[in-house]
Amino acid sequence: MTGAAPRNLAFLLAYDGGPFQGWQVQPHGPTVQGKLEDALRTALRAPIPLYGSGRTDAGVHAEGQVAHAWLPGAVDLHKLRGNLNGLAGPHIAVKALAWVGPEFHARHSALGKTYRYRIFNRPYPPVLGQRCWWVRRPLDVPAMRRAGAALIGEHDFSAFRAKDCEARHPVRTLRTLAIARDDQPDATLTLEFHATAFLQHMVRILTGTLVAVGLGKLRPADVAAILASGERERAAATAPPEGLHLLRVHYDLARFPELVAFQGA
Amino acid sequence: MTGAAPRNLAFLLAYDGGPFQGWQVQPHGPTVQGKLEDALRTALRAPIPLYGSGRTDAGVHAEGQVAHAWLPGAVDLHKLRGNLNGLAGPHIAVKALAWVGPEFHARHSALGKTYRYRIFNRPYPPVLGQRCWWVRRPLDVPAMRRAGAALIGEHDFSAFRAKDCEARHPVRTLRTLAIARDDQPDATLTLEFHATAFLQHMVRILTGTLVAVGLGKLRPADVAAILASGERERAAATAPPEGLHLLRVHYDLARFPELVAFQGA
Repeated sequence: MTGAAPRNLAFLLAYDGGPFQGWQVQPHGPTVQGKLEDALRTALRAPIPLYGSGRTDAGVHAEGQVAHAWLPGAVDLHKLRGNLNGLAGPHIAVKALAWVGPEFHARHSALGKTYRYRIFNRPYPPVLGQRCWWVRRPLDVPAMRRAGAALIGEHDFSAFRAKDCEARHPVRTLRTLAIARDDQPDATLTLEFHATAFLQHMVRILTGTLVAVGLGKLRPADVAAILASGERERAAATAPPEGLHLLRVHYDLARFPELVAFQGA
Repeated sequence: MTGAAPRNLAFLLAYDGGPFQGWQVQPHGPTVQGKLEDALRTALRAPIPLYGSGRTDAGVHAEGQVAHAWLPGAVDLHKLRGNLNGLAGPHIAVKALAWVGPEFHARHSALGKTYRYRIFNRPYPPVLGQRCWWVRRPLDVPAMRRAGAALIGEHDFSAFRAKDCEARHPVRTLRTLAIARDDQPDATLTLEFHATAFLQHMVRILTGTLVAVGLGKLRPADVAAILASGERERAAATAPPEGLHLLRVHYDLARFPELVAFQGA
């Protein structure tokens, strides 16, 4: 590939976060980025940095993480995907690959993200790998929905960010918060969050707080008051990472039409 | 509980078959029945045999296995379920318990069973614990449905039984074979089989053969010919156990109305 023009490649990825110390390369422990960069180095015999749309915490899963990398030149994408799936598995899947224009950047080009938090709400434990938080006592879903209504829109989410969150400002716009209950086959409650961007642990602290409402430990109206207070201490404990899934990263498909291929993958 | 009348208790169970050598107690390796009998012995301080609706093979999962046991007397079922879930976990869940009349027998009273076989049909591997068989090449689902139509009804299923199947006769009635494709979120193909009873490995050999049709290795009409031949060698290889789920065991709810409680569990 010597002398060929470098090309920008977009990745659609799924992973089970359980075995990893999160997305980003760390000094200790396996990471999704590290495992994929190792696979790329083996497959293409060159060190190729991979840029994700953002970090996911240790233990957090992804069904639609997006990343990009500059390759030294053209390669057969069908073969590359097969090779990477062999090398990066069994906890990481390269769902799709697409050549994109040089202006595409997985993080900077992202318009927003959708996360889904999964809760198994039964008195017995989830045994069939639901990748969810087990909440034994029944949740009052209508109360959770009433509480969640106060969170929609542009707010200072200081009450729902990790103490060591490095974001420069705490204002975010939550566009969607949909709480759905699916009683068959496995009594899973899903909380779907769509926003332009999220603060550190924001989805997990929001979920922990909404679950406190669902259990009757907080009233729905308390959530608006917690939001207004900006005080992390008033919100509930952070929900565990194993229920969180990065479902989708949103891009302008008019600007990056190559990414339409990711939708059916 | 000395002197109290023994009472018959029905169990609704889910389990991840992965860590077990199947349902039935074996000389070597953990089994679901063994793990539950250990938990019962600890919880009730007495050896209590547990009778399942039937065996499941090593690696096969259950969402709705049913069993029964004779307890020395009445116990608090809410507490017992909590104790058993603590003792038998994390791969076995006691979903529900119900007192039933003395005539109830998990195996002899069963009217039929529903199994679901799950296939992940994508070129990349399943990473989010789908408990399914990974078939990389796209399956022709309409062809599989055409082939499956020949299997419905009462037939001699000798071509689709394990070599060492111990059933006395090979005639079974397959009431339903429904093949459904769910492309979101994870491209899972499910084959649902309902029958009064099954031969050993029958669902897995039928699935393997229908997948051969879906991959174009057999024609739909071949399946009727294989069925008519009664020759195991002509059917395809047995599909792996990890995609198979015992979904439900059916009983006469007019005769055992206590089991209605299992439906919502």
